[in-house]
Amino acid sequence: MKSVGIIGANGYTGSELVRLLAFHPKVELQFLYSRSNSGIRISEIYPDLIEICEMTLTNKIEEVDILFLCLPHQESKNWLIENPLKEDVLVIDLGNDFRLESNFQDRNFIYGLPELFKNEMKSAKSIANPGCFATAIQLALLPLAKGKLLQTVYTTGITGSTGAGQSLQPTTHFSWRNDNVSAYKTLNHQHVDEILLMLNESNETEIELNFVPWRGDFARGIFTSSIIKCDLELEIIYAKYCDFYKDSPFVTISEKPIDMKQVVNTNRCAIHIEKNKDTIVVHSAIDNLLKGASGQAVQNMNIVMDWEENTGLQLKSIAF
Amino acid sequence: MKSVGIIGANGYTGSELVRLLAFHPKVELQFLYSRSNSGIRISEIYPDLIEICEMTLTNKIEEVDILFLCLPHQESKNWLIENPLKEDVLVIDLGNDFRLESNFQDRNFIYGLPELFKNEMKSAKSIANPGCFATAIQLALLPLAKGKLLQTVYTTGITGSTGAGQSLQPTTHFSWRNDNVSAYKTLNHQHVDEILLMLNESNETEIELNFVPWRGDFARGIFTSSIIKCDLELEIIYAKYCDFYKDSPFVTISEKPIDMKQVVNTNRCAIHIEKNKDTIVVHSAIDNLLKGASGQAVQNMNIVMDWEENTGLQLKSIAF
Amino acid sequence: MKSVGIIGANGYTGSELVRLLAFHPKVELQFLYSRSNSGIRISEIYPDLIEICEMTLTNKIEEVDILFLCLPHQESKNWLIENPLKEDVLVIDLGNDFRLESNFQDRNFIYGLPELFKNEMKSAKSIANPGCFATAIQLALLPLAKGKLLQTVYTTGITGSTGAGQSLQPTTHFSWRNDNVSAYKTLNHQHVDEILLMLNESNETEIELNFVPWRGDFARGIFTSSIIKCDLELEIIYAKYCDFYKDSPFVTISEKPIDMKQVVNTNRCAIHIEKNKDTIVVHSAIDNLLKGASGQAVQNMNIVMDWEENTGLQLKSIAF
Amino acid sequence: MKSVGIIGANGYTGSELVRLLAFHPKVELQFLYSRSNSGIRISEIYPDLIEICEMTLTNKIEEVDILFLCLPHQESKNWLIENPLKEDVLVIDLGNDFRLESNFQDRNFIYGLPELFKNEMKSAKSIANPGCFATAIQLALLPLAKGKLLQTVYTTGITGSTGAGQSLQPTTHFSWRNDNVSAYKTLNHQHVDEILLMLNESNETEIELNFVPWRGDFARGIFTSSIIKCDLELEIIYAKYCDFYKDSPFVTISEKPIDMKQVVNTNRCAIHIEKNKDTIVVHSAIDNLLKGASGQAVQNMNIVMDWEENTGLQLKSIAF
Repeated sequence: MKSVGIIGANGYTGSELVRLLAFHPKVELQFLYSRSNSGIRISEIYPDLIEICEMTLTNKIEEVDILFLCLPHQESKNWLIENPLKEDVLVIDLGNDFRLESNFQDRNFIYGLPELFKNEMKSAKSIANPGCFATAIQLALLPLAKGKLLQTVYTTGITGSTGAGQSLQPTTHFSWRNDNVSAYKTLNHQHVDEILLMLNESNETEIELNFVPWRGDFARGIFTSSIIKCDLELEIIYAKYCDFYKDSPFVTISEKPIDMKQVVNTNRCAIHIEKNKDTIVVHSAIDNLLKGASGQAVQNMNIVMDWEENTGLQLKSIAF
Repeated sequence: MKSVGIIGANGYTGSELVRLLAFHPKVELQFLYSRSNSGIRISEIYPDLIEICEMTLTNKIEEVDILFLCLPHQESKNWLIENPLKEDVLVIDLGNDFRLESNFQDRNFIYGLPELFKNEMKSAKSIANPGCFATAIQLALLPLAKGKLLQTVYTTGITGSTGAGQSLQPTTHFSWRNDNVSAYKTLNHQHVDEILLMLNESNETEIELNFVPWRGDFARGIFTSSIIKCDLELEIIYAKYCDFYKDSPFVTISEKPIDMKQVVNTNRCAIHIEKNKDTIVVHSAIDNLLKGASGQAVQNMNIVMDWEENTGLQLKSIAF
Repeated sequence: MKSVGIIGANGYTGSELVRLLAFHPKVELQFLYSRSNSGIRISEIYPDLIEICEMTLTNKIEEVDILFLCLPHQESKNWLIENPLKEDVLVIDLGNDFRLESNFQDRNFIYGLPELFKNEMKSAKSIANPGCFATAIQLALLPLAKGKLLQTVYTTGITGSTGAGQSLQPTTHFSWRNDNVSAYKTLNHQHVDEILLMLNESNETEIELNFVPWRGDFARGIFTSSIIKCDLELEIIYAKYCDFYKDSPFVTISEKPIDMKQVVNTNRCAIHIEKNKDTIVVHSAIDNLLKGASGQAVQNMNIVMDWEENTGLQLKSIAF
Repeated sequence: MKSVGIIGANGYTGSELVRLLAFHPKVELQFLYSRSNSGIRISEIYPDLIEICEMTLTNKIEEVDILFLCLPHQESKNWLIENPLKEDVLVIDLGNDFRLESNFQDRNFIYGLPELFKNEMKSAKSIANPGCFATAIQLALLPLAKGKLLQTVYTTGITGSTGAGQSLQPTTHFSWRNDNVSAYKTLNHQHVDEILLMLNESNETEIELNFVPWRGDFARGIFTSSIIKCDLELEIIYAKYCDFYKDSPFVTISEKPIDMKQVVNTNRCAIHIEKNKDTIVVHSAIDNLLKGASGQAVQNMNIVMDWEENTGLQLKSIAF
């Protein structure tokens, strides 16, 4: 059994890690750190955790084998400065601090998209867990980028309210968001750089990504559609995708239409491709808190620790 | 008072016309025709109509001044063949029969987008009411087309379940659709021809429209985002939109972000434009059953009859 | 035209009054008062009001014929003390300040349930508008109370998120409330006293009301079911209800099952009664912001001003 | 490993069993029977099962150790007549055929509420799995019945659309059900007899249950509130509940308010009790497809097979 600590355990991604790790057969939760809520049992904040995790949030840090950072963006660096760690602690950061700049202190953060860097992860001690939209869009486009087939991409994506976090905001007020759709950060989402960094590595020419994110009226899930000019036959494209993901247990390439809810509450990504004349559309769907955050973090931990990739991630879908 | 008949009054668009016309001060509902449900009071099918419209659906046609056809697509033609009308009856067809082919029998159908053809409508006796997605996308793009600024357009749009009609289908089952998003008719939606017919009329070069429609988990509303390459300054673009719609009481050009629900249960279309480098995104939102169908049909009737354009259409938004 | 002022115009009930009065043919909005948001156009807070009401919120009070108070509960009294009014101004208070204590300053507040006090209102200058649950439950029970048929009542009611107001709270966070149901203020809701005050007036014995309110995962609407022991035949009960509400244009007594959405976005109350052996269940449904607040306030204004009761209240239902 | 067959595998409860048993470490799915869809892979009907269960539905029955019947109500009897089984096959019927009449053929069906009949189940070969509302209401009331404290109970319960099954019906049409609430089978629900049979066994006097079921606008979940006259102190009542459920790993007695979503997608039942004067209200929440159907069926199987009660049932809640 490896010991685990979670920094920022009372947020959505932190508590989702608790939900996953409480049933993970190879790890033991050692401490749940929260500055703002220390002294409170996590099951008082999230009553679904009653009798599943009755740990009390703490502001004391203990030695552990594995540490997950679930802090607001750009707070992980400060946290690591203020709380020096032994070098053999596996750190998995769910923020965006180390996605673009991978070197910090003596650590070299591997970008935690296992479909791309599974081998690099095996000897890693530091993982920068990808963003939720970044995961959904990269998985949709990577096989084309590897094939040097991308130039200009037009992507629309829709995300659930949990993507905006736990804090109360006008755009997460139920009365406003229910039955509503709206656009935000048009052509300007913070994940675009992260997406392009990975895609451009393999593509021949510089890729242009025009990304329009929408807020959806559901709590969990991301659905994206990317429109791309491409001359290849659809069967050849499907073959490229199947080949690219042949060792990826959580990616489903589906020749039948997909819907977002088929992956909600699971760690899976579903991908479906359609073509008309010289235009293809790649659809992808994930659960933003699982494959888009905490589930992928557990998947990454499993890979680094050399456990079965799906350990603790055989999750029943909500389905309906 | 003008007399009105509705053919296909028991569907969503037909009953929505009843809701509007029951309070319209210039018309009187004369008969509500339904083959399948004749003999049943419409308020038994739609209990919101109790004490508002207690008419019984009939399979007999009477003489009226104005006739709305709310039939399944491609059934209006047969209906007109089987039920010859006096030539001075105003016919407004909510199906797609006469949108692309405007001449039928002795009638010349005007495409009923008042923001484009208000003048042509004034002497019309036959109106082909636009499709819901067609309305939302045309209103988003028309000022650019008029400015000969369109080449390739990448549009994603999301629609409520009422867009799929009243019949029971797996994709309108609550257990499936709730909290779900999915794509359908990718690059292949039946409204694309209708949209291009109108846009190309004014544009210089042939426009290419890549349209990906999504099913949303709400009952009413359409939200679209169109990505377009364009070098103009944003202020100039806004000026073009404001100018184009200066006589359009139901189109709102908003420099602030819009959300779908701000127009739900109204006849309005809200438009918002954003720009980053050489790329603009035009967002538009309508209620698919009102500005996208029955509301626009009443607006068209008002124009033909030379009544105030917003007569019977001062609708309280659901807002929240 | 009568002039109207709204105190607290930027909340849900205040802005809903704006939506109604903007189209009301007999009144003119004179000023919209808001301490916290003065200087801001109301259409910036509620974009559905763009081009419908472009007034700027103010912290200055002007003389008007009719004044609506849409303040938090128990703030109306202070406001009236600090802002003395001419005695002939019609004051309609949407808070709970004057529902139980009707005398204040020189004013005598009539409880604004028109189905009960329409005559008393005709000469009134001060109206205490009922609470939302109070309206739904009183309308469900009044004919039985008048018949001296009530003893112990067991009521469950469910309300939309707008009932909790515009402020951000954990229980109105979309991620929590979506797909969720929960109970609150069990047997202890603040409307119980208000309900009993009215019911006991006509009933023979003291009524006991056991009321369990639930939070629903929708924005608008209230649905209640009250279980009551009663020996009368169902037809006789229906006859009593029809008779009691024969002059009430907004109450629908339905022998067919009702659903909440049939009244959403309208000022109507739908009532349906069922019986099994010696037990009856009365269901009622309203829109909490309309018949449960702002719509009823307009109805009350119409009655006091001797206008048609439904002036400005012929609202298209959302229906679906 | 025990072999399992599912009869009626393509419905909601049948496919939910597949989701659970695909990850259950002690059983192997042997065949999935469906008359209507034989020859189709179950993952084509439920794409969330892609790569999780790729079995093809069949109309052939094989020998198995454990058989789940997921047929429409009152079809299990005929099925057992037409398909004689070896007597040592464990049969778990999710229909209502054997809940009230426990003897059929040579089999004696134990009512499968493990909180009541865990001991009786241990040697059973036939289990009648309880109804969903029956489970939620019995778990809410059993400790009071055991204490002979029940006389008249007033219960309102709300259920998700999956409770109405997979078939397309007007009341499961998304456009109707979204944002809607309605009552059905008022005082007349088929689970009342089943509930009373169990409760009356231990109670002193005949219990009267007045039950009003509502349809909710969510897919999964049941929430109930029962109002009961009771003089006991609240702490004593809580003590009785804690004692009664001390060996029940899936029942949570919560002194803090509960919400439905805390148990959605889990096999848990959450119970919370409140008191005012001589009246108590017991709230309970379950997932209608899990603790209310397929999850409880797996729990029952575990008990009969003498496996850990929560084997295969450590399910991550949807939570938000």
